[in-house]
Amino acid sequence: MSSDDAGFKVALEEAKQGAKEGGIPIGACLVNKDGKILGRGHNMRLQKNSATLHAEISTLENAGRLPASAYQGATMYTTLSPCNMCTGACILYKVSRVVMGENKTLVGGEDFLTQRGIEVVNLKNAECEGLMKKFISEHPDDWLVLMRG
Amino acid sequence: MSSDDAGFKVALEEAKQGAKEGGIPIGACLVNKDGKILGRGHNMRLQKNSATLHAEISTLENAGRLPASAYQGATMYTTLSPCNMCTGACILYKVSRVVMGENKTLVGGEDFLTQRGIEVVNLKNAECEGLMKKFISEHPDDWLVLMRG
Repeated sequence: MSSDDAGFKVALEEAKQGAKEGGIPIGACLVNKDGKILGRGHNMRLQKNSATLHAEISTLENAGRLPASAYQGATMYTTLSPCNMCTGACILYKVSRVVMGENKTLVGGEDFLTQRGIEVVNLKNAECEGLMKKFISEHPDDWLVLMRG
Repeated sequence: MSSDDAGFKVALEEAKQGAKEGGIPIGACLVNKDGKILGRGHNMRLQKNSATLHAEISTLENAGRLPASAYQGATMYTTLSPCNMCTGACILYKVSRVVMGENKTLVGGEDFLTQRGIEVVNLKNAECEGLMKKFISEHPDDWLVLMRG
């Protein structure tokens, strides 16, 4: 598992697309056990005034309504450690693995994923971290309002 | 706290609206500490082919993009015990209380809510249970596909 992995590359493309749109630059991609992309998406909080369209939720939403079996053995790639909501979504759909770009910006529900038997991989990718660092320095209020109200 | 509580009545109305639309009859309502309704919604899995618009997610989405402070002291009313995704969403936004109609149909992330200091109330409401029983008996496949793939 490296940052060259196709699923991760798509998640990173999505994060960059979010940045282009002036949004919070977090992207995700859901890949099934056969390597097929089921969905991809990015955080739409600012673009759609959305409280729930985080990158992983956008991705699951874009994948559409699938039977539970479709998620068996799937990997959720995300450029940032998943928050509690997105962690819960990965547990709900019983994905097998979560691969994150980084967790320096935020540590989400990694422990909870591990407790539920979901493999967690951190790529410690500098590009993902850089995207978030740039966003937070340019839009501190849009980030801090999430963190402390 | 009883089934006459205004927030719960709205959640139940939402569940019934979902039933009318042929959807999974689960409704929710988010009420802030001053008793103001911030959002309301119902499960849209069938209506929108949505993997993420559970009742609580629809409700948070309909409430729009709010600062974290808006959720302080808030109560999430839902007609059914919240799944892991919706549990995670309540933890993300740090609502103070989750009031559910019933948990006979499904026991979601109640323990996790309690561990995180969120008060959990179960109204054991027969009407909520009846709505789900009717839906599952009439559309067993649409429910079981969620449970076992």
